[in-house]
Amino acid sequence: MGEALAGLKRSCMCCDVNETMIGKEVTVMGWVQRRRDLGQLIFIALRDKTGLVQIAIDGNVAEKELFEKAESVRSEFVLAVRGQVAPRTEGNINPNMKTGTIEIIATELRILSEAETTPFQIEDNISVKDDLRFKYRYLDLRRPSQLNNLVLRHKVVQVMRNFLDQENFLEIETPILGISTPEGARDYLVPSRVHPGSFYGLPQSPQQYKQLLMVSGMDRYYQIAKCFRDEDLRADRQPEFTQVDMELSFIDVEDILDINERMMQKVFRDILNVEIPLPLKRMTYKEAMERFGSDKPDVRFGMELVNISEVVGDTDFVVFKTALEAGGSVRAINAKGCGAFPRKKIDSLVEFVKTYRAKGLAWIAINEDGSLKTQIAKFFTEEKLAEIVERMDGKPGDLILICADQDKVVFDSLGALRLELSKMLELTKADDFNFLWITEFPMLEWDEEAGRFVAVHHPFTAPMDEDIDLLETDPGKVRAKAYDIVLNGYELGGGSIRIHRRDVQQKMFGLLGFTMEDAQQRFGYFLDAFKYGAPPHGGLAFGLDRIIMLMCGASSIRDVIAFPKVKDASCPMTDAPTVVDEKQLDELAISIKKEILVSEEAE
Amino acid sequence: MGEALAGLKRSCMCCDVNETMIGKEVTVMGWVQRRRDLGQLIFIALRDKTGLVQIAIDGNVAEKELFEKAESVRSEFVLAVRGQVAPRTEGNINPNMKTGTIEIIATELRILSEAETTPFQIEDNISVKDDLRFKYRYLDLRRPSQLNNLVLRHKVVQVMRNFLDQENFLEIETPILGISTPEGARDYLVPSRVHPGSFYGLPQSPQQYKQLLMVSGMDRYYQIAKCFRDEDLRADRQPEFTQVDMELSFIDVEDILDINERMMQKVFRDILNVEIPLPLKRMTYKEAMERFGSDKPDVRFGMELVNISEVVGDTDFVVFKTALEAGGSVRAINAKGCGAFPRKKIDSLVEFVKTYRAKGLAWIAINEDGSLKTQIAKFFTEEKLAEIVERMDGKPGDLILICADQDKVVFDSLGALRLELSKMLELTKADDFNFLWITEFPMLEWDEEAGRFVAVHHPFTAPMDEDIDLLETDPGKVRAKAYDIVLNGYELGGGSIRIHRRDVQQKMFGLLGFTMEDAQQRFGYFLDAFKYGAPPHGGLAFGLDRIIMLMCGASSIRDVIAFPKVKDASCPMTDAPTVVDEKQLDELAISIKKEILVSEEAE
Repeated sequence: MGEALAGLKRSCMCCDVNETMIGKEVTVMGWVQRRRDLGQLIFIALRDKTGLVQIAIDGNVAEKELFEKAESVRSEFVLAVRGQVAPRTEGNINPNMKTGTIEIIATELRILSEAETTPFQIEDNISVKDDLRFKYRYLDLRRPSQLNNLVLRHKVVQVMRNFLDQENFLEIETPILGISTPEGARDYLVPSRVHPGSFYGLPQSPQQYKQLLMVSGMDRYYQIAKCFRDEDLRADRQPEFTQVDMELSFIDVEDILDINERMMQKVFRDILNVEIPLPLKRMTYKEAMERFGSDKPDVRFGMELVNISEVVGDTDFVVFKTALEAGGSVRAINAKGCGAFPRKKIDSLVEFVKTYRAKGLAWIAINEDGSLKTQIAKFFTEEKLAEIVERMDGKPGDLILICADQDKVVFDSLGALRLELSKMLELTKADDFNFLWITEFPMLEWDEEAGRFVAVHHPFTAPMDEDIDLLETDPGKVRAKAYDIVLNGYELGGGSIRIHRRDVQQKMFGLLGFTMEDAQQRFGYFLDAFKYGAPPHGGLAFGLDRIIMLMCGASSIRDVIAFPKVKDASCPMTDAPTVVDEKQLDELAISIKKEILVSEEAE
Repeated sequence: MGEALAGLKRSCMCCDVNETMIGKEVTVMGWVQRRRDLGQLIFIALRDKTGLVQIAIDGNVAEKELFEKAESVRSEFVLAVRGQVAPRTEGNINPNMKTGTIEIIATELRILSEAETTPFQIEDNISVKDDLRFKYRYLDLRRPSQLNNLVLRHKVVQVMRNFLDQENFLEIETPILGISTPEGARDYLVPSRVHPGSFYGLPQSPQQYKQLLMVSGMDRYYQIAKCFRDEDLRADRQPEFTQVDMELSFIDVEDILDINERMMQKVFRDILNVEIPLPLKRMTYKEAMERFGSDKPDVRFGMELVNISEVVGDTDFVVFKTALEAGGSVRAINAKGCGAFPRKKIDSLVEFVKTYRAKGLAWIAINEDGSLKTQIAKFFTEEKLAEIVERMDGKPGDLILICADQDKVVFDSLGALRLELSKMLELTKADDFNFLWITEFPMLEWDEEAGRFVAVHHPFTAPMDEDIDLLETDPGKVRAKAYDIVLNGYELGGGSIRIHRRDVQQKMFGLLGFTMEDAQQRFGYFLDAFKYGAPPHGGLAFGLDRIIMLMCGASSIRDVIAFPKVKDASCPMTDAPTVVDEKQLDELAISIKKEILVSEEAE
C-alpha cells in the first residue's frame, strides 16, 4: 500500500548526516537495508544513493504507534523518517560506515511503499545468476557496486563533455534512422511505413555524417553516439553500444593524439585520482606485432616475443624448417619462473595455442641447476639449444615457449599465450592503467580470394604523406594515418585522418579495384559532398562502455549499462524483442516468412 | 585536386584575428566566401566557423606563383593562408564586419581543396527550395544562420547538463532497441535476426525505463534522449526527435516546477542574455481554457475569451439558444481596433473558425461614432447588444467576435482565432519570451464510444492529494498532478507525478475499466517492479528541438537539426529509407508483401 509524501520534504541524503548535525532535526528517505530488533530498541539501516544511515526507535521513549510501525518494517520498504541526529553509544560505533558515529532518533516514520521479498539480496558479493540479475535489473541496480558503476559513467561523460566544450568542439546529434550500407557488419533495419518496401538502417557509427559535418565547416564535432551492430554477442559486445565520437578539421595525426590523450588524462585524474603521464607511449603497428604479437598489447608486463628465426635458420627440425621455408618465422617467449611447470600444465599451453591455429609449441625448461629439459633435445645440438636460451635471456627456473608458423599464426598464438600466462601468474593489477598509441597501421592488405587489396581501416583513410608515392610502386607497404588507443590490452578507440583530396581518393579506389564510377554508385551522396570543398580532417571514436568497464574494474560491459541485452540480444527484463500485432506488420507492408510461422505453431 | 596540409598549423580562427595582432604572422584556414580582383590587387574573404577575414594579395609585392594561385581561387575552395596582419586602408574599413579593420597580407597560400559551383549561394537571406537545401544539407549548414543554430543548440545542451549535474542528476542512457507497446502513437519496429518473427520497438520516450531507474534508487535521472514516433509529419514534428528527459524521487510537484524553471532561467540568461523572472506564472488548466481557449496559451497579448452565456441566456436567437440548451456556451473575444475590418476580412475569419468545427461566428463591429454594425442586429434588442458590448469592454473601433457551441468547439475556435488575429495584427515579438506553467490537468476524460474513462496523461499519473476521495465519488472531477511548461503558445514540455501506491494504482485501473489482472497482462514487468518498494517520484520531458527553434527564432525544427527528415519521413541527402538486399531480409526472416512488389514492378 503506502502512505503519501504529503508535504514532507527530504532535508538531506542519508550519508550527508554527520556529527556536526547532532541535536538537529533531519528528514531522510530511502530503502530499508535491514531491521534489527533488540527488545525495546529497533535499528533500521536506511539506504539511498549515497549509502546507509542508522535509524533508532526506542520503545521506552517513542510513541506506541511509531514503535509498532517500525516493527512492521521489512527489507526494501521505502521510508521517510524525521528525527534528531544523535551520537551513537560507544559500543555501537561502526568505523566501517561513513555515518558510523551517529544515528537518527526517529520522531516520525512514514511507510511510503511496502515491498515483497526480493528475488535476491540487495548486497554486493552475493552470487546471483546473470539471468535473474538482468530480469530484475531495477533491483540489481540497487546494489552499491552496480549503482556506483552508473555514477562513475555519468561523471566520466560529464568530464569529457566539459573538456571537449573547452576545446571548441560542438556536440551535434546525427540521425538514428539512417541509411543501410552493404559494407561492414550487419545493420539493424527499420521498415518504413510511408515508403513500403524500403528500410532505414541504424548507424554502426556516425562516420559519414561526421565527415559531412566537416565538409559543412563545423570544424570540430563530438557526440556520445549510440551505435548498432547486428552481430553475435561476445562478453564485451552489445547490439547497441556507445561511442565517444569526434571529428576535427584542419588537423593532422599529432593534433588528434594530443587532444585525446589530454582528455584521457583529465578523465583519469578527475574521476579516479590517477595520474596518466603524457605524452602517452607510442608504438608502431609493426613494433607492437613483433614485440607483443598483438595490435592492442598489454604492456604492463614483459614476456615479449623474440624472433629466433636466424638462430634456428640452419636447423633440420622439420617443424621450424617448414615454417621458415614457407616465409614464416620462429618466435619465442620466455615465461620467467615457469621452468618448474609440471608437464601437464605445459601440455595445456600447447593445447591453448592450437585455438589460434598454431600446430604446437616447442618448449625448453631451464632447471634450477642450469640443465635443460625440452622435447626438442634430439633435433638440436647442445650448443644450439644454449644459443636459443641465451638469445631468450633464459635463466634457471625459466620456460621458453617457441612457435613456428606463418607470421600471423605465430603472432596470434604467442600474443594470446602471453596474456594467458599473465592471468595464470597474476602479473597485472586492474588499477595499473597503462595506455599507449598504436600508429602506422598498414593501409591495405592483400585479399587472396578476391585477388585484390582491401582497406584495413576503410577506403577513406589517408595514407601517410611519406608513403603516397608507394601507392603507385608498392601499395602493400603503404602505411595509413590510422591510430588506436590501447589500455591494458583493450582497444579503447581508434580513428584516422581521412582522404580529402580527390586525386588520392581516386588512386585509392583504383587499388581497391573499382573506378570512380563504381565508387560513385557505391558511395553516392558522400563522394558528391567532397566536390564542393572538403577540409583536411580526421577523427577518433572511443568505446565508452569499455572505458567505463576498465575504470570500474568490472568484468563485463553489461555491468556498466543501465539496461543491457544478454547473449541472445534479448532483454530479460522487458522480454524484448517480442511478437507484434499483425496489424502493425500490415501497416509496414511486411510479413514474417511462412517457415517461421509454421515452426512456431508446431511448438 | 588539392594540396596537403603537410605540417602547416592553423594559428587562429578567422574572426580571432584583430588589431592587436597587426604586424604578426598568422595562419588561417577556411572556405572562400568570395574573391574580388582589383587589377594587381586580389581580395579573398575567407570563412570559417567564426566568420570572415579578408586576405589581400598584392601583385606588385607577392611572388608571381602566389599571385597566380590566388587568381585561380573560386568560391568555396578550401585554403590555408599564412600572412601578416595589417590595418586596412581607411577606404577599405568595413564597420559591419568583426574583422573589418584589418586584413591578412598573404605570404603563403595553399589550395587544400577545389570546389565546383555549389547548387546555391552559401549565404543567408537567399531563396532556396527546402528540397534542394536538405539534399545538400552539408552546404546549407555552411550558411551562418544554420551553423549558428547548431552552435546555439550545443551551448543550450551544455548549460542544461551542467545545471542538472549540479542538481545531483545522473545522466543515464536507456535502450534504443526497446519493446513495442500497443498503446499510444505508432512505434518504429526493428526485426530481430536472432528471434525470427520478433521485433524491437524504438522508444517513443524512455518513460518506463526512467520510472524503473527511480525504483532502482538512482534518485535523479536525466537524459538527452532520442525518441521515435512513426506518425505523419507536421511542421514541427520529426520521426526522431530529442527530449530533455528527467525523473526525480521523493519529490512533489513544487520541486519539479522549481528545478525546471530555474534551469530555463539559466539557459536563457547564459545563452541569450535574457532574464526570465521567477517564479514563472502558473495557471490551472481550467483557467487557461476559460481565458485563452487553449492549454498552451500565448499570453504575450490579451484578447481573452469572455463567457457571455449569462448575458445572452434569455435570447431567442436560435444559434445561441441551441448551444446553451445542449450544455454548451456562448463566448466572445474583443479584437481591439479591428472594427473597421472590411466585410470580406470578417468573412475570412468566419471561414477560419470552421476548420475548428465551429458553425460560424457572430460579430459586432463598433463604429468610431459608437454605433454598432452587426449581422445579428435583428435577433437582439439594442439594450442587449449594448450589454454584450459592455461585458466585452467594447470601445469605438473594436470588433467583437462571438462563438456559440459545445465548450470544446468554442475553446478551439476562439483559441485559434485569437492566435490568427495576433499574427494578422503582428501583436507579438519572437524575442519576447513569456513562460508559464499549466497545472491541474484533468485526470480522466469520459470516452463516449468506449463508455468508460480514459487517462488524459497516462494511467500512472497521480491524482492530486485533495482529490483522491473523488476517485470514488466523482472521478471526472479528479485533477492530476500533471503540468506543462508553455512558451509563447508552444508546449515546451510536460510531465507528472506518478502513482507509487499500489492501492491508488488499483483504483485507477478500475476506473479505466480493467482489473489488476488485465493490467498485469498489459504492463507486466513494469507493475512487477512496483512490488519491491517504489519511491514517490515524478518527472518531466522537454522537446529540445522546439526549445532551440524558439530560441533561434527559426520557423521549423528542421532548421535546428543537423540532418532532418522531410515531410515523407525521408532524408533527401542520403535517400534513406532505401530498398535493401533480399539477403538481408532473408536473414531477418521477413518479406515484403506481394502487393507492394507487384505495384513497384508495374511502375
